[in-house]
Amino acid sequence: MDKLFTRRSEKTGLAPGTLIHIGDRKLERMKLTLFEYGGEADVSEREISIPGECFPFKDQPTISWLNVDGVHQAQIIEEIGTNLDIHPLVMEDILNTSQRPKIEDFDEYIYIVLKMLYWNEEHSEVESEQVSLILGDTYVITFQEGDEAGKDVFDSVRVRIHGGKSRIVKRGTDYLIYSLIDAIVDHYFVILEHFGEQIADLEEELVTDPSTDTLQFIHNLKRELLFLRKYVWPLREVVSRLEKDETDLIEESTSIYLRDVYDHTIQVIDTIETFREMISGMLDIYLSSISNRMNEVMKVLTIIATVFIPLTFIAGIYGMNFAYMPELQWRFGYFIVLFIMALIFIGMIIYFRRRRWL
Amino acid sequence: MDKLFTRRSEKTGLAPGTLIHIGDRKLERMKLTLFEYGGEADVSEREISIPGECFPFKDQPTISWLNVDGVHQAQIIEEIGTNLDIHPLVMEDILNTSQRPKIEDFDEYIYIVLKMLYWNEEHSEVESEQVSLILGDTYVITFQEGDEAGKDVFDSVRVRIHGGKSRIVKRGTDYLIYSLIDAIVDHYFVILEHFGEQIADLEEELVTDPSTDTLQFIHNLKRELLFLRKYVWPLREVVSRLEKDETDLIEESTSIYLRDVYDHTIQVIDTIETFREMISGMLDIYLSSISNRMNEVMKVLTIIATVFIPLTFIAGIYGMNFAYMPELQWRFGYFIVLFIMALIFIGMIIYFRRRRWL
Amino acid sequence: MDKLFTRRSEKTGLAPGTLIHIGDRKLERMKLTLFEYGGEADVSEREISIPGECFPFKDQPTISWLNVDGVHQAQIIEEIGTNLDIHPLVMEDILNTSQRPKIEDFDEYIYIVLKMLYWNEEHSEVESEQVSLILGDTYVITFQEGDEAGKDVFDSVRVRIHGGKSRIVKRGTDYLIYSLIDAIVDHYFVILEHFGEQIADLEEELVTDPSTDTLQFIHNLKRELLFLRKYVWPLREVVSRLEKDETDLIEESTSIYLRDVYDHTIQVIDTIETFREMISGMLDIYLSSISNRMNEVMKVLTIIATVFIPLTFIAGIYGMNFAYMPELQWRFGYFIVLFIMALIFIGMIIYFRRRRWL
Amino acid sequence: MDKLFTRRSEKTGLAPGTLIHIGDRKLERMKLTLFEYGGEADVSEREISIPGECFPFKDQPTISWLNVDGVHQAQIIEEIGTNLDIHPLVMEDILNTSQRPKIEDFDEYIYIVLKMLYWNEEHSEVESEQVSLILGDTYVITFQEGDEAGKDVFDSVRVRIHGGKSRIVKRGTDYLIYSLIDAIVDHYFVILEHFGEQIADLEEELVTDPSTDTLQFIHNLKRELLFLRKYVWPLREVVSRLEKDETDLIEESTSIYLRDVYDHTIQVIDTIETFREMISGMLDIYLSSISNRMNEVMKVLTIIATVFIPLTFIAGIYGMNFAYMPELQWRFGYFIVLFIMALIFIGMIIYFRRRRWL
Amino acid sequence: MDKLFTRRSEKTGLAPGTLIHIGDRKLERMKLTLFEYGGEADVSEREISIPGECFPFKDQPTISWLNVDGVHQAQIIEEIGTNLDIHPLVMEDILNTSQRPKIEDFDEYIYIVLKMLYWNEEHSEVESEQVSLILGDTYVITFQEGDEAGKDVFDSVRVRIHGGKSRIVKRGTDYLIYSLIDAIVDHYFVILEHFGEQIADLEEELVTDPSTDTLQFIHNLKRELLFLRKYVWPLREVVSRLEKDETDLIEESTSIYLRDVYDHTIQVIDTIETFREMISGMLDIYLSSISNRMNEVMKVLTIIATVFIPLTFIAGIYGMNFAYMPELQWRFGYFIVLFIMALIFIGMIIYFRRRRWL
Repeated sequence: MDKLFTRRSEKTGLAPGTLIHIGDRKLERMKLTLFEYGGEADVSEREISIPGECFPFKDQPTISWLNVDGVHQAQIIEEIGTNLDIHPLVMEDILNTSQRPKIEDFDEYIYIVLKMLYWNEEHSEVESEQVSLILGDTYVITFQEGDEAGKDVFDSVRVRIHGGKSRIVKRGTDYLIYSLIDAIVDHYFVILEHFGEQIADLEEELVTDPSTDTLQFIHNLKRELLFLRKYVWPLREVVSRLEKDETDLIEESTSIYLRDVYDHTIQVIDTIETFREMISGMLDIYLSSISNRMNEVMKVLTIIATVFIPLTFIAGIYGMNFAYMPELQWRFGYFIVLFIMALIFIGMIIYFRRRRWL
Repeated sequence: MDKLFTRRSEKTGLAPGTLIHIGDRKLERMKLTLFEYGGEADVSEREISIPGECFPFKDQPTISWLNVDGVHQAQIIEEIGTNLDIHPLVMEDILNTSQRPKIEDFDEYIYIVLKMLYWNEEHSEVESEQVSLILGDTYVITFQEGDEAGKDVFDSVRVRIHGGKSRIVKRGTDYLIYSLIDAIVDHYFVILEHFGEQIADLEEELVTDPSTDTLQFIHNLKRELLFLRKYVWPLREVVSRLEKDETDLIEESTSIYLRDVYDHTIQVIDTIETFREMISGMLDIYLSSISNRMNEVMKVLTIIATVFIPLTFIAGIYGMNFAYMPELQWRFGYFIVLFIMALIFIGMIIYFRRRRWL
Repeated sequence: MDKLFTRRSEKTGLAPGTLIHIGDRKLERMKLTLFEYGGEADVSEREISIPGECFPFKDQPTISWLNVDGVHQAQIIEEIGTNLDIHPLVMEDILNTSQRPKIEDFDEYIYIVLKMLYWNEEHSEVESEQVSLILGDTYVITFQEGDEAGKDVFDSVRVRIHGGKSRIVKRGTDYLIYSLIDAIVDHYFVILEHFGEQIADLEEELVTDPSTDTLQFIHNLKRELLFLRKYVWPLREVVSRLEKDETDLIEESTSIYLRDVYDHTIQVIDTIETFREMISGMLDIYLSSISNRMNEVMKVLTIIATVFIPLTFIAGIYGMNFAYMPELQWRFGYFIVLFIMALIFIGMIIYFRRRRWL
Repeated sequence: MDKLFTRRSEKTGLAPGTLIHIGDRKLERMKLTLFEYGGEADVSEREISIPGECFPFKDQPTISWLNVDGVHQAQIIEEIGTNLDIHPLVMEDILNTSQRPKIEDFDEYIYIVLKMLYWNEEHSEVESEQVSLILGDTYVITFQEGDEAGKDVFDSVRVRIHGGKSRIVKRGTDYLIYSLIDAIVDHYFVILEHFGEQIADLEEELVTDPSTDTLQFIHNLKRELLFLRKYVWPLREVVSRLEKDETDLIEESTSIYLRDVYDHTIQVIDTIETFREMISGMLDIYLSSISNRMNEVMKVLTIIATVFIPLTFIAGIYGMNFAYMPELQWRFGYFIVLFIMALIFIGMIIYFRRRRWL
Repeated sequence: MDKLFTRRSEKTGLAPGTLIHIGDRKLERMKLTLFEYGGEADVSEREISIPGECFPFKDQPTISWLNVDGVHQAQIIEEIGTNLDIHPLVMEDILNTSQRPKIEDFDEYIYIVLKMLYWNEEHSEVESEQVSLILGDTYVITFQEGDEAGKDVFDSVRVRIHGGKSRIVKRGTDYLIYSLIDAIVDHYFVILEHFGEQIADLEEELVTDPSTDTLQFIHNLKRELLFLRKYVWPLREVVSRLEKDETDLIEESTSIYLRDVYDHTIQVIDTIETFREMISGMLDIYLSSISNRMNEVMKVLTIIATVFIPLTFIAGIYGMNFAYMPELQWRFGYFIVLFIMALIFIGMIIYFRRRRWL
């Protein structure tokens, strides 16, 4: 339930722009990391403790990337927002982790919300983390909900910046934001592979040994895909608008890269829809296999009952205690009856063979 | 039924613009409350008894918000409408509580119909109240069907106006109308949370102990969502047109706030659709679980019948009264037969084990 | 079948514009009624027998409304059409009562086809009557299939014209046509109420006592809604185009009234779709209730069979006639066996209780 | 299968424009018929053997309609095409009878592909014949696959031309092509009537006596409708483009006739979709009726088994051969047991009555 | 699984434009073949080993077609790309064989990705091979994944070029690229024919002898069609954009040929959708046939049980050992009971006949 719907009722009735964090606080302390590169200067990365420290970056020609891990301390977000002239509604959205992916263009900067997805090996399910990105002329700010070690999809971007020779350091903030979005979308393929494996397992199970758990498995996969879909569909529009909108913040030469991300997004959506169709096909098969098995059970019952009930009836007749029952006195009466019973038995078997029940 | 379809046949055949109230009269008396603020003046709130009292507000520079609780007294609505040059069709719509959410632009003013939703704890269902909003240059008029104590979603807006420092009092009627719509839409999330809880309960019940009531539960949830959806889908267009239409009544700076409401609306719709898909998935599971249980029942029957019917047949044979049945005279005939029966019994059990029925 | 598909094969192969009546002739004689009003003159209503009588109206400044009941006399339709320069295809369409609702703009006049719907109490089903409307500059002509007494939805318009004070008599033909369409659409709500009641009955029946008739009932409702939908969906476009098309025949001030009709049409469509969804949900419930009942039946069978078959087997054993069966000679053999049987019986009952079958 | 998919693999790998006939050759020899009318001249119709004979028509002011029956002789098609400057791809398409209805505008001429549909009474199924139409300034050429006697839907057009007074002979090629398309579409209504009858039969059968054949019947109807739909849906676009495209070949005054055909096409599509919905509703009913009947069977079994199994058990007890069974010696033991059995029997019957199984 | 989802996680986190091959390496060595034709020169075809050899072609007036078999050697692709100024993202896409069909216009050249489909007779399934096409002013480059002997769909194009008289050698690169795409799409019809045969087999099997394998067969066909659809749907847009986009690379006279390919694509999509509908109809029939068969089984069981259980009960009664049972002493008691049993038997048979169970 939790993943498909986030509580936000605590916010009901507050003025718009009221900064209240909605979500599960994952971190003890927010962590701010500032990258600076471009121009003559070398690439620098440093952790800063007071947000105020980093605001000069706005007016410098170098490119600054401020990554904020954790969004639960409203006052820090507010300080950053106020200094950079970010609209109060944007700050409110950053704090609220139940956003739908979206893009908003404020001329001076573009605000983007995305979902990073991680695969939780333990529970075999998808987990999401909200990422807010602000693209300015000379700066990019990213807000992540948490920073579990070894899980950050931005690491690959960091490595490339440090390398110093990558295209990233030679180009502007638009290429940086592209790289970040690309890293997020690329990671979706990892999630899809996990789903792919689960669906393959499921198909295997369906053929070999469908059980009641199989139904639960199908249901869970369906829910996870519903969840995935909810985050990926709006992404399509986000990337498309980023590519097509007329804004000075995105250079023409970056557009082609964004188109590439767009293609990937379409591919992710395509695969999700294919998965959904496959799972719904599997449900049909599961239901048919239940019916088939019931048929099998019924056949066994019917064969046994149909063969033995008439025979038992015959035995019952000669078990009656009438004073005058001529057959009972016959020398071979017993054997004749046994013989007749055998005939009936064989006849029944042949009948069932003909009907293909045996 | 009632919620999904409102009777309005009493209106059939009347001239358009004929003012007839359609709906359940909830209030004894209509209640008019007038807020005035903006300019130099302090915020004032007063209840007025004669509509005429409040009409000077139209030409004053201050911002006036007239809230009308109850819409069953046609003559009061008419008086208000006539004084403010409201189109007769609008007055007709205000009185008719079976409207679909919609927006109409009359240049001089904009007319909006929305639905406030409340959660009825007692019956675990959603209740709706129609709200008509008229946005003029210097005034806002809102018409609510009823005013059950402690339930009005506009209360949060009232508090903020009284506070006097909120953004509301500093801006025009467009921001006020935004605040009112935002309050209504925000409250939808509360409704969604109730649904979320019910769906979680349902999932729990499905796994642990599905009963015939579960089906009724699923059906009721489905109906409630149908109802919710009917009121929320058109809302999307209402807010979108309010944001995008070229009208002098909405300032540019308010547009971004309306976009925020629009995002919330999309989120509500998204969640409703997700809920619908989940519920339809649950119906599948429920049906499968019925089939599965039938399978279980059949298996028990089949095992018992298949094991004992042949044995009973054998007993029947030696219960026959033929004069000449050699086995009957054997010293250990009885025990041999018992032994054979035991063998058959064990053979059957092994057979069922192999078929995984045991 | 009839309602969903009208035979029109008799027309196959004829030249376009050939005037042949298609439909069930309901009237003995066509009836022409002419209303004249507007200008200085009083409102006049008179029945005319020779169509020629009424043609001067075309060039008079007053507003003329010619209502034609019955469309089976091709030569009368032709006479009217020729005198007013109506396109032959329009005359053909007027005669053919299997039209889909549509609108056609011929500059000089607008041709509209609609369906009036009546509720047939006797068969609990919807009946339709085709109405053709021609909107000219100074005249409106309406063609109805029949004129069953007390059923005409135009009566309310007639009353208002006679009243002489209604907005109708003060305005042009565009307002008259609006009034007529409004009267038709308003009547759809009456039909919807009948459906609403039937669906409520159906829900009641489903919960209390679903029978084989219930399925037939569901099926019939579904078909009736299919039928309704077929006539209402195209209406939406008709009204929308009437409102939006640039034509000199519709004044700006009438547009807002047409928008109101448009809103009603949307509401009708909305309700139909909601009804359809509810009915399809009911089918699911019906099917589940069949399965549930089968489960119940199976359980009873299984319990009885499972309890008594083993007991009967035991009785069968001691009914065998072996010469040497030591238990038979025991003093309390009989009572011991009875006691064992009782134990088995009680054990079975406990087992079924645990499985929740009892 | 055949109707839903035509083999065309023999063409794979050939150069575009290669003239190869794809389809079942129906005729021994192609038949060319030339109509000439318009201007001063009388209407003339003659069969021609050498295509070359008829090419002068291109430059004559009269209107020529060349109808070609049979499309299997590639060289004749080629000769016609080359003389009239028809694009090689068009000639290829004429020969290939597996086309989808389509329209192509080549400025000089318009190429249209349609499907004529015939009802095969014998197999109760629809048969199709491909018709290619080329509309030039002064000529119309039509290519039909075959010419089974008495089946040609163009006959009605021929009759009207011969009449000499029809609108056809007074107007240009655009009106001729309209007449031909109209004849084809009109004939679809005949097909729909056959379907209507079959669906009515099916409904009757479902209510009175559904059998396994009913399912096959439903399935066949579904397939036939799939087939019909495949040919009619694209037709909509063909007629719409013919009406709306800017081309000198269609006069304004003919547009209104094409709009009429367009309306008919919509009506055909509407009816097909309605039929499809009805058939899918019938499948639901069929499946429910199977379930209902299974329920009936189960009930009979359960009642019999539940009533007699306990009684048989009691009889079994008193059939045991224990030496000491006091009841057996009672004077009225037998009658007491019979009485108890009767009580149980009656009790069971009452129980089943209460459960509404009887 | 494999076909519906390709692993690409190994690429996650790499910089865009990083050339890494994704796919199954099918070839030992890449093979480059260069065609040159057009102008005065004869058609020449030669295999080249060093990519550098062929780059002069860019500036020659003749038309060059470089076909590359195998895409696993990144450095060769890179060399080609760099020399022809191909964008790094395009080179990355060429190496990645999990692309969706798409088209990208880079002004200087157009990049197209398509899927060639082959029918694997052995496993009765579809196999795909990715083809990348680059259309320049004077050159066309095609990249294929593999070159299994006798399977290349481009062979027909090669033959036509060698012929030297085909339209291909007289026209530009746009006609060449059309010919290549046409060859690919034409081959889809071969695939569809295989499906058509399988569906016909399936229908046959469903009617004559549906088994559990039938369900698996249906499921497999469904999956294969899902796969097919995934590759064909985007193709539609690719061809449509190639035809409609304003680019100097495509001449007007080639557009009509592309429109022809577009028509074929629509036909392929149409057929796939028809197949999908047919298969889903078959699943319904399969499920109904399971239910029907269960009904049959139940009827047999019920008839046997219902006939013999009461008879056995009667036999049981007269098997009781009561001391005083008057009937037992009757002279014809036994025969009277046999007669009564026969009556009951016949009565039952008549009852079942009436109910149509026999």
